[in-house]
Amino acid sequence: MMKLQNDIVLRAAKGEITERSPIWLMRQAGRILPEYREVRSKLSGFIELVETPEFAAEVTIQPVDLLDVDAAIIFSDILVIPQAMGCAYQMIESKGPFFPQTVRNEAELKGIHVADPHTDLKFVTDAIRLTKKNLNGRVPLIGFAGAPWTIFAYMTEGSGSKTFSVARKILYTDPAFSHKLLDMIADSTIAYLKAQIEAGADMVQLFDSWAGILGPDQYREFSLRYIRKICKAITEVPVTVFAKGAFYAIPEMADLPCRTIGLDWHTDIRQARAQVGSTKTLQGNADPCLLYADEETISAGVKSMLSAFSGTPHIANLGHGLYPDTDPNKVRHFIKQVKAFKHNQ
Amino acid sequence: MMKLQNDIVLRAAKGEITERSPIWLMRQAGRILPEYREVRSKLSGFIELVETPEFAAEVTIQPVDLLDVDAAIIFSDILVIPQAMGCAYQMIESKGPFFPQTVRNEAELKGIHVADPHTDLKFVTDAIRLTKKNLNGRVPLIGFAGAPWTIFAYMTEGSGSKTFSVARKILYTDPAFSHKLLDMIADSTIAYLKAQIEAGADMVQLFDSWAGILGPDQYREFSLRYIRKICKAITEVPVTVFAKGAFYAIPEMADLPCRTIGLDWHTDIRQARAQVGSTKTLQGNADPCLLYADEETISAGVKSMLSAFSGTPHIANLGHGLYPDTDPNKVRHFIKQVKAFKHNQ
Repeated sequence: MMKLQNDIVLRAAKGEITERSPIWLMRQAGRILPEYREVRSKLSGFIELVETPEFAAEVTIQPVDLLDVDAAIIFSDILVIPQAMGCAYQMIESKGPFFPQTVRNEAELKGIHVADPHTDLKFVTDAIRLTKKNLNGRVPLIGFAGAPWTIFAYMTEGSGSKTFSVARKILYTDPAFSHKLLDMIADSTIAYLKAQIEAGADMVQLFDSWAGILGPDQYREFSLRYIRKICKAITEVPVTVFAKGAFYAIPEMADLPCRTIGLDWHTDIRQARAQVGSTKTLQGNADPCLLYADEETISAGVKSMLSAFSGTPHIANLGHGLYPDTDPNKVRHFIKQVKAFKHNQ
Repeated sequence: MMKLQNDIVLRAAKGEITERSPIWLMRQAGRILPEYREVRSKLSGFIELVETPEFAAEVTIQPVDLLDVDAAIIFSDILVIPQAMGCAYQMIESKGPFFPQTVRNEAELKGIHVADPHTDLKFVTDAIRLTKKNLNGRVPLIGFAGAPWTIFAYMTEGSGSKTFSVARKILYTDPAFSHKLLDMIADSTIAYLKAQIEAGADMVQLFDSWAGILGPDQYREFSLRYIRKICKAITEVPVTVFAKGAFYAIPEMADLPCRTIGLDWHTDIRQARAQVGSTKTLQGNADPCLLYADEETISAGVKSMLSAFSGTPHIANLGHGLYPDTDPNKVRHFIKQVKAFKHNQ
């Protein structure tokens, strides 16, 4: 393995209090960059970009060159997992994901299988290998997957939703089926993340994007349980868990066998630190809308965020993905301010 | 004023620990009832129903007859306020609200004015008068309005949104305009709620449906501040504040000059009670998806919810509005179980 020239994110993820705040941004590779939109415009759609390693690797590296972040995250989509399990998705322009065939009961599990990443997801591991080669040790590469509950929500609901009431209904009406599908997703995810690590991912993140639509009891039973299973299985590299909206679960997440907890922008940093204790790294958590503000306001937001993290292991990030209409210059200003911040330690 | 035959909700809202749990449900008047859908099918659209007092009164009373709830809530929409302020909305079938003309800056405030409920919202006060007459003292009638932040979010964004990033951007880029518009909404809401009370509303509720997309600091500055202004002004009847997703604000909501705090289904009841103290009534908070389950599961859910509230003033409700495809028989079972529950007090 090539030695990393900049390993500050990785050291922070291992619990080190680093010399400055390391930073990467959720959705840093994507529509905010004109260079991304140029690549994208040459292709038939989002899914072609995800499934073509050359292009995926190219847009993965763009923010390292253009935004000066401390880590790359492989360009992909959490919905490659349902697809690899036998439940294909489409990405409908300006609408989002759509599943022509949902999986809502035992009978519909026919044709659904635990994913084999070496065949069904080879385009991702190929993209990782190519990215690692082209990054040439400049920064670490982050792999990722959706958390089982979030993947389950899409596979059952069939699309995005304000309430995910179809998905949540199934948790009440058919818990046995729910656990069966969730377990298959968890096993697929473990195999998938291990394949990403084998291909070169230096750390991995689980995105539980729809954590916040479950109440505490159901979150424990139908989400945290499977996140725990995955965290236990992934021992090769540091794991980050980002569960958007699951404020009530932060104290329990402190006990997960993972290294880093991602915080959304609703979370009070000091309170989360008190709940998690000092052993884990925290990641986050500026409001993506802060990057619409003027430079002075952005600087003040950075200062306030980093002061709250000071003296504890953390990785600067947003509390959600970058919004596509954000000005890249504002993003660069945000990143510069983070890197320049002096902790009193 | 006619004496109420069933005033249990009102007594609970005034802080009394009642002989059994009183109950009403958010969105109890609406698409779950075939009788509602029949009225609706005769009309050109949702807005005609809202603006025709005879029909609005009819569907308001339906759940009292058909579901046996302890209170009626006037059938209307929170978006009548922007309309009365000069910013008209449309309701697009299976999509939701849409504003052809948004209000995003000082210049666009031209044509926007503080609502005069006696002219611009006469259809609501007429509906309240008619409902009160036809209810004939059976149960109290609840009036309502949207909280200023939620109304602001719609007026600026122009429609529903997963992120409300347009609305939230304005809080960062033009706080002066934001405060100006929020204050006009708050003043409109005060006049509107006072007109509802004058027309016969026995209590009122503020819905901050999009509370949960703001972080704690912005919630304090751009939402709680205006909710407080409204609560201070409404001294005639008990006020309930329901701020969906604003878990971080519950301790501060304990200090609002209102009587009842509504809880969403993510909130741990005992923890909320500890944060709010014993002086206020709590309302809520079953997951609307619980009503998809079998009767046994629903009964267990009711028991678990009511046990957590036991011994403190509370009003049973859901933690969000009823979902339109809920079976009315399940709703009736839920309500019966609530009414039959014996508190150990």
